[in-house]
Parts: sequence; C-alpha cells; structure tokens
Amino acid sequence: MSRRFETILLETDADGIATVTLDRPDKLNAFNRLMLDEMVAAFDATDADDSVRAVIVTGSGRAFCAGADLSASGGATFDYAASGGWNGAESPVRADGSVDFSNPAVRDGGGILALRIFASHKPVIAAINGPAVGVGVTMTLPMDFRLASDTARFGFVFARRGIVPEAASSWFLPRLVGIEQALLWCYSARLFDSAEALKGGLVRSLYPADDLLPAARALARELTAETAPVSVSLMRRMLWNGLVASHPMEAHRIESRAIWARGASDDAREGVAAFLEKRGARFPDRVSEAWPDFAEWFDNPAYR
Amino acid sequence: MSRRFETILLETDADGIATVTLDRPDKLNAFNRLMLDEMVAAFDATDADDSVRAVIVTGSGRAFCAGADLSASGGATFDYAASGGWNGAESPVRADGSVDFSNPAVRDGGGILALRIFASHKPVIAAINGPAVGVGVTMTLPMDFRLASDTARFGFVFARRGIVPEAASSWFLPRLVGIEQALLWCYSARLFDSAEALKGGLVRSLYPADDLLPAARALARELTAETAPVSVSLMRRMLWNGLVASHPMEAHRIESRAIWARGASDDAREGVAAFLEKRGARFPDRVSEAWPDFAEWFDNPAYR
Amino acid sequence: MSRRFETILLETDADGIATVTLDRPDKLNAFNRLMLDEMVAAFDATDADDSVRAVIVTGSGRAFCAGADLSASGGATFDYAASGGWNGAESPVRADGSVDFSNPAVRDGGGILALRIFASHKPVIAAINGPAVGVGVTMTLPMDFRLASDTARFGFVFARRGIVPEAASSWFLPRLVGIEQALLWCYSARLFDSAEALKGGLVRSLYPADDLLPAARALARELTAETAPVSVSLMRRMLWNGLVASHPMEAHRIESRAIWARGASDDAREGVAAFLEKRGARFPDRVSEAWPDFAEWFDNPAYR
Repeated sequence: MSRRFETILLETDADGIATVTLDRPDKLNAFNRLMLDEMVAAFDATDADDSVRAVIVTGSGRAFCAGADLSASGGATFDYAASGGWNGAESPVRADGSVDFSNPAVRDGGGILALRIFASHKPVIAAINGPAVGVGVTMTLPMDFRLASDTARFGFVFARRGIVPEAASSWFLPRLVGIEQALLWCYSARLFDSAEALKGGLVRSLYPADDLLPAARALARELTAETAPVSVSLMRRMLWNGLVASHPMEAHRIESRAIWARGASDDAREGVAAFLEKRGARFPDRVSEAWPDFAEWFDNPAYR
Repeated sequence: MSRRFETILLETDADGIATVTLDRPDKLNAFNRLMLDEMVAAFDATDADDSVRAVIVTGSGRAFCAGADLSASGGATFDYAASGGWNGAESPVRADGSVDFSNPAVRDGGGILALRIFASHKPVIAAINGPAVGVGVTMTLPMDFRLASDTARFGFVFARRGIVPEAASSWFLPRLVGIEQALLWCYSARLFDSAEALKGGLVRSLYPADDLLPAARALARELTAETAPVSVSLMRRMLWNGLVASHPMEAHRIESRAIWARGASDDAREGVAAFLEKRGARFPDRVSEAWPDFAEWFDNPAYR
Repeated sequence: MSRRFETILLETDADGIATVTLDRPDKLNAFNRLMLDEMVAAFDATDADDSVRAVIVTGSGRAFCAGADLSASGGATFDYAASGGWNGAESPVRADGSVDFSNPAVRDGGGILALRIFASHKPVIAAINGPAVGVGVTMTLPMDFRLASDTARFGFVFARRGIVPEAASSWFLPRLVGIEQALLWCYSARLFDSAEALKGGLVRSLYPADDLLPAARALARELTAETAPVSVSLMRRMLWNGLVASHPMEAHRIESRAIWARGASDDAREGVAAFLEKRGARFPDRVSEAWPDFAEWFDNPAYR
C-alpha cells in the first residue's frame, strides 16, 4: 500500500511496516486542517489493511512538525469563532454571542487526531527527525514509542502563544512523564533539546539523524516478527485501556472476554503447539476479522 | 501456622512473616486450577490470622512459575469452552453457539488470583527465584514489592502463544512500569533477563540466589517491626485504592473516615504516647477486629 | 501584598512571587487548626490577586513542618470525637455512639488543605528547608514542585503513631513516586534523608540550605517570565485534571473549550503576533477575569 495525499505520504514495506510522512517540508510540516483529515484517513487505512503490522510517523526534510500553521491567519489562527472551527461544522456561537459548547465545531483538531491515534489497531512509533513543537509534539503522545534524532527539539509552547495545551495532552503527558515534569515543560513553554527529552522520559532513545528510521523499523520488526497479529492488535487497546480503567476489575472483565475468545482461536492452538514443538509459529488469524467482536468492549462505557 | 496444600506450601515464622511457596518443582511450578484455588485459600488464611504481618511468595526449585500448565491440554489449554472454564461453572456457551459473557465461567483464572492478592490485608512481597513467565509474572504485579534472583528471567509471552495479557495485568503493568515499557514487553513477547527487569522498573532489586529469601524477610521485618498492624493493613488498601480513585476527593473521604476511626483507637493513644516518651510502642489493636468497619469502604462503589 | 497571620507569613515580591512561610519556629512549625485556616486564607488571597504569578511554601527556622502539633492533646491529638473535629462543626457522634460519616466535622484537616492547594490557580513550589514529617510532608504533595535543602528529612510516620496516611496522600503519593515506593515509605514509617527523597522521586532537586529559596525563586521566574498568566493558570488545573480524567476524551472536552475560549483572546492574538515578529509578548488578560468561565469545567462532575 502506498498513497500520496496532499500533505502526507503513506508507504508500506514488504515487512508490513507502514510509514506516514508529514510532507510539507517547505512549511516545516506545519499542521493544518487538511493534514488532520489526511492523518485520520491514513490511520483508517492502516487499521483496515491486514498486511500492515505497525505504523511509523516521521517528517519530511529537516523538521518533524513545527506546530500549527500560522501562515494563513497569523494572530487569528486559534480564533475558531472567526475561522469556523476545525471540523467545518456550523458555528457554535449563538445569536447572543455566547458559545454552545455542545457543538462539535468546538472540538480541538489536535485532539481529534490524538484520539484517532489512541484508537489505532496497530502499534505506532514516532520517529522524531527534527523540531516537534506545539501540536507537533502533542500528536506524538498517543503513539506507543517516541524515538528521536539527537538534533530534535521540543516545545510545549502554548503558554507563550497565549493558549493552552491540546491534543488531549493534558491526559497523556502527565501519565507519560509524571505530573511534575509535565507542568514544568508546559508552564515554562520553552524549547528544549533531545537530551532533556530523553532524561525527562518524553522519548525512549536518541539516534544520529541517519540511523533514526532504521532504528524505528528495527523496533517495528521486533514487535511483529514472531507474534500473532490479532494478539498484538488487541493488546494495544487492552493496555492503553488499562490506564483508562478505574478499577482492576474493569481490566479483568475485558481480559476475561479476550482470553475466552482468543484462547479458542486457531492462533492459540498454533501458538501453543509451536512452542511445545520448539518451532516458529505461523499465525493464521486476521486482525480485520477479529476486531468486530472486540471493538464494542472499548467503546461501550460499561467496558471502559 | 503451617499448611501443606497439594500445589503450594504455606509457612509462618516467629516474626509473623508467612511464606507461600509454589510447589510443583517438577513442573517448574506451572499454574493450574488447583493452584489458583489453593493460592486464594492461602490469602484467605493469612488475612484471617492476626499473627501474620506480611506475606512472601516464592517458588520451589529452580523456577518461580513457568506459566500456565500446558501439559494436560496442549494447544487447547486456553480453550475454556472445551475445558469448562477456570472456575468450573456451567458453560457460558449458548445453544446457538454464542457466548454468554455474563457467565462467571468466562472469568480469567489469573485475574481471579490477581484480584485476591490486590485485596490482601497484609503486605505482599514477591521473591522471584527463577523464571517467571506468562501468569508466572503477571501474578506478581498486584504484590507490593518484587525482589528477584539475578538469574531470574521474565516474559509476557502471550502474543507468541496467540493469546493476550491476563491476570488484570492490563491494569497493573502500565501503572507499574509505564505504558511504553508495558507495550514493549507485551508486543515483543520475548524473554528478558533480570537486569532488564530492574532497569525497566519491574523488580525493585536483585540478589544472588541464596540471598533472595533473606532479603525478602529483611524487607518484611522493616515493614512490620515498629508499626501498628492495623495501620499497615489499612494503608495497604488505602494506597492501592488511591490509584483506583478518580479524584483526590475520593481518597479524602476514605482517609477522613479512617483518621476519625483510628485517631480514637488505643493504637493511636499508644503510638503518640510512645513517641512523646521516646520509647518503642506496643500496639494493642488487632487487624481482624478493625477490618469489618473498613471493608465496605473499598467494596462499596461510592467509596471507590 | 504582605500579610502576617498568627501561624504563617505571606509576602509577595516585585516579580509577583508570593512566599508562604510556616511561622511557628519554636514548635518546628507544627500544624494545628489555626494554621489550616490561615493556609486556606493565604491560597484564597494568592488566587484573588492578579499580581501573584506563583507561590512558594517554606518554613521558618530549622524545620519545614514537624507534623501535627501534639503539644496540646498528646495521645488524644487525633481523637476528633474528643476534640470536636478539625472544622469545628457539630459533633458527628450520634446519641447511640455511632458516627455520622456524612457530617463534615469528620473531614481530615490535612485533606482540606491538600484539596485547597490542588485547586490553586497559581503554580505552587515547596521549598523544604528542614524536617517535613507527617502532614508536614503530605501537605507538599499537591504542590507542583518539591525542592529541598540537603539537610531536609522526611517521614510518612503514620503507622508508628497508630494512624493512617492523610491529606489525600493516598491519591497523590502513588501517582508521584509509584505505588511500590509509596507503600515502602508508608509501611516502614521511618524517617529518611534528602538523598533517598531525591532518588525515590519525592523531591526534584537538592540545594545547600542557603541556596534553596533562591533556587525556588529562579524556578518561579522560569515559569512566569515569558508566559501568559491566564495560560499558566488554566493549564495548572488542566494538567492535574488530566490525572483525574478517566478517558482522554474527558481531557479533550475541556481542552476544546479552553482552546476555543483562549484562542479568541487578546492573549492569543498578542502571543502569535509577538512570535511572528520575533519579539517578546506583553499579555493583556487577567487571571481573575478569565477564571469565572472556566471554574465550572473542573467542578462540574460532567467535566471531571
């Protein structure tokens, strides 16, 4: 699968590793509404394609993503009452000037993307090849792993622009790096380098620029080479959902159903048999066929 | 208290430190339904016995626990529709072949054990003396501390067997080691050594094999030597429950009731007096007498 | 703003950095009901004063806070049925001797303070200049950063006094240092030094005694020098609330409303314009004017 969008590029290699490349290098891959729509479409495509085992997200040229594109509207960029809102729906501003916050037009665009990545059926690896600022860094938080070039820079710069964190980062960031580190980076709103990102737990490992994508691909292969595709896909949602679950009993309910269903699968028969016979397993089941039975567990409030 | 079960051994020393030993050394202490039932009975016993101050869990022979016992059913081990389910209840499979997920027979056995350990009234220390794989490692996650022999090995191998994580590990593991590390170990499903377990935060400290149990006992004494048994017992549930609580107000409600009740206790009178008189305290209150008033706080949804 | 209470001192410098000093040095700044009331009043004052950008909390003399003041009631200090409860309301003890736990007099005083600090509209920095024991350390947990003198000592000593953790610490402590470290410090109830506090993640950094307050002020300036006051104020609640939120969708709802509101603000126009013009920003909006629209988002259960 390979598809050229306007603002991104989606390519899949022979090992089933898809790469989504933010591709507006002359704009430092700045984020705009079209990129949001195309990113969502790319994750819909990788979820639907059983040949895709993992997804890498990286940037074209010298930046990963410089943040929201300020070139069109300048100081009014974040004034969605003026711009019509991220999702193009009817204005939520009532005749008397008050705002109807139940109107979906109010929804933050970065958050729409973050929630889509959160729901991915395939592991997601960020390969942060250069500056990742504003939504450029917050969009990576719902990805499973963040690898970076040692020349990458980061900034939760919202407080210097007069706005606030977005892309559901107020949920993700304190859970990934701890509340103290999250507050420090967001309060100060300054740029920081890759060494500080590594020390603070934002990224997992650093690489010379040329080694970054090979390292991301090696990680993707480690996750997928000897494992059952349905198991990997399900456990992505199960483990993230473990953070959503309040009580361990909620995790137990989902796990019980998943063990029951997958324990009787052809994959389990093959996996255990291969282990007992000390040979590699060939897992027959397909992610797209397994998911319809599981999707409701994570979407149904009773199983959250 | 000393009791020999079929698959485990329960012994208590003069300091009130109970040791539960997984005791199927010829099977590498592989987990089966009888071991589940006996482990639950052991924790019922340590909860009920006021002479027990802390519980150590370890393995007999060279392994801690090699995971689910595959010797009886091979590739059908996890096919509970075939085997009747962990808890032996009526099959949840309906006449039309669909599964009634409200049937308790669907419940994952590792999760039943994990939730029982989670609810323990006494501190629990894992002394991981050798390989801990599958349910062998996930059963240790609701324990308070994991110490390991430097020859221990670990594996969240589910994705190589075609199944998924269990024992409520999707709740515990991301909270203990972070979501990124949890995903990496579960996706790759490979075995890893004690050094990696230490670095990744899965275990607290490593010891030469012969020093492991003495270190676990020393830790147990540190927790219990100068502290009030009721305080230790209550705070175990309070702190784990602090992770369950959504808002700090929920913790405040339970703490307020606990401070009110224990502040007026003979233990508090003695503890403060001993401190002011610069002498050791002799706490008179008994865990089994204090718990009936508190149990509902953690079980009642309004106090979760 | 400068105000001398009976048990604390509140001073604000020219940079808008307020310092709350626990000021009972002859009692090692031991905590009592008056100090609770005055601390709450101090945080009400710093929230209401737009010239205040950040709050530092420290102790007078050689201690930070030695814990609850035991000098008045000794062994009956925590017996609120005898003392009338922290908040002075009607006794919750019914005629038949049972306790009405819905009576607000039952509320733990440390928790009332912790929840007030949790709700602060300004960043809060603990400058722990000496021993911080019992409520003396738990009151610092809802603060954003803990800096300490290298001579500071710490103790979650409750289990040695026959009581249990308070000040909502069962919610805060496991989230700040992990459940394993939280259990270890609370079970053992022993005093520990600043190096152990640093290693265990309780404090962020250590300083020679004379350098502690200057370091805290430097941190406060880093958070406030180039950032929009309303952004900093809002993101404090947003990020802490991100830990309260169960699902990232809950964070997304609040962020969407905040981005919508602040994106159309004069602050955002100025912040983006200053960035594009490569100059420093002068943010015009005031915290006290912005908050009335936001407060309900965090107080309304539907937005928790």
